[in-house]
Amino acid sequence: MFISFEGVDGCGKSTQARTLAQALRDQGRQVVLTREPGGSPGAEEIRRLLVEGAGERWSAETECLLFTAARRDHLERTIRPALDAGQTVITDRFADSTRVYQGAARGTLREMVDRLHELMIGVEPDLTFVIDIDPATALARGQARGGNEDRFESLGLGFQEKLALGFRALAQEYPDRVRLIDGSGSVQDIAARIRAVL
Amino acid sequence: MFISFEGVDGCGKSTQARTLAQALRDQGRQVVLTREPGGSPGAEEIRRLLVEGAGERWSAETECLLFTAARRDHLERTIRPALDAGQTVITDRFADSTRVYQGAARGTLREMVDRLHELMIGVEPDLTFVIDIDPATALARGQARGGNEDRFESLGLGFQEKLALGFRALAQEYPDRVRLIDGSGSVQDIAARIRAVL
Repeated sequence: MFISFEGVDGCGKSTQARTLAQALRDQGRQVVLTREPGGSPGAEEIRRLLVEGAGERWSAETECLLFTAARRDHLERTIRPALDAGQTVITDRFADSTRVYQGAARGTLREMVDRLHELMIGVEPDLTFVIDIDPATALARGQARGGNEDRFESLGLGFQEKLALGFRALAQEYPDRVRLIDGSGSVQDIAARIRAVL
Repeated sequence: MFISFEGVDGCGKSTQARTLAQALRDQGRQVVLTREPGGSPGAEEIRRLLVEGAGERWSAETECLLFTAARRDHLERTIRPALDAGQTVITDRFADSTRVYQGAARGTLREMVDRLHELMIGVEPDLTFVIDIDPATALARGQARGGNEDRFESLGLGFQEKLALGFRALAQEYPDRVRLIDGSGSVQDIAARIRAVL
């Protein structure tokens, strides 16, 4: 089974991905917990180009290509081998992030994003959890983390609001695959909502 | 005018690109001499991922995406602004390199390469010179240069021979745009052949 977690930075999805991975391991399952951009040695190198530096460092189109390059490497070297070996893969972000970040929030490139995905990736998760949270709260959390991976946060609150709307729209577009999870409350509260869906 | 030079590493194309740029500048033209992968600050960063390291570091598909990302940035930030300002652009490699390196020599990905080019780049040079040279001679020259940009040379002579055949095939496929130039003789001999076409 291939599961992805999506949402704006600071929504709590990384914590929930870890929590779910641990719960499934406790049941005796073999779980590969991974993330994007990154998740394989080559893709982690591409990640640095994407999440560091100035907001306008790349156009949305170039970003799409770099995210898709990293995703292709991640898919070939981490995700597919794990699924082929019967393991469960949980990824913190996948193609839905590109649909929202580059396809909707940074321009109207959604058709291009979809054609690029179809041509070079073609795979979707079996199940996607979107952690839905107030964009201002998420931005404050993301910024509080510090570090130099703040390129997208640097695009500001208006951008975060577009992202939140974009993720909610995905849940309507793919009702069978994408589930919107209320991101308010404690880590345990949110984890319980996710387990209820599973 | 947008001119590209193509061929295997060590064929002499970089020298000929420089020589032509100088000749056109001597005539009073404004010339931007550039190269791929690279040619803009972002694309030069992507270049390091592509030309350094082990031959099998990336699959041909991931390579295509990285080259196309670098090309998109190069086009947006260097080539298009120069052409819009009425300058002549001479580039050492462009999309034909991807057609040959990833589309023909590392797999049978030509259709994918063409669809990716159409979706994300869409531009062709007005004129392309392929410098045609014996692959073994080119490989020896490329290796003699040293440095750490030897990822494609490390794939060996069989790969270089496939590349040389691929570049010759391009000249037949695009007879109006791509001219095959005999790469034997002195720098001046080859430059004279190029000037005769121009």
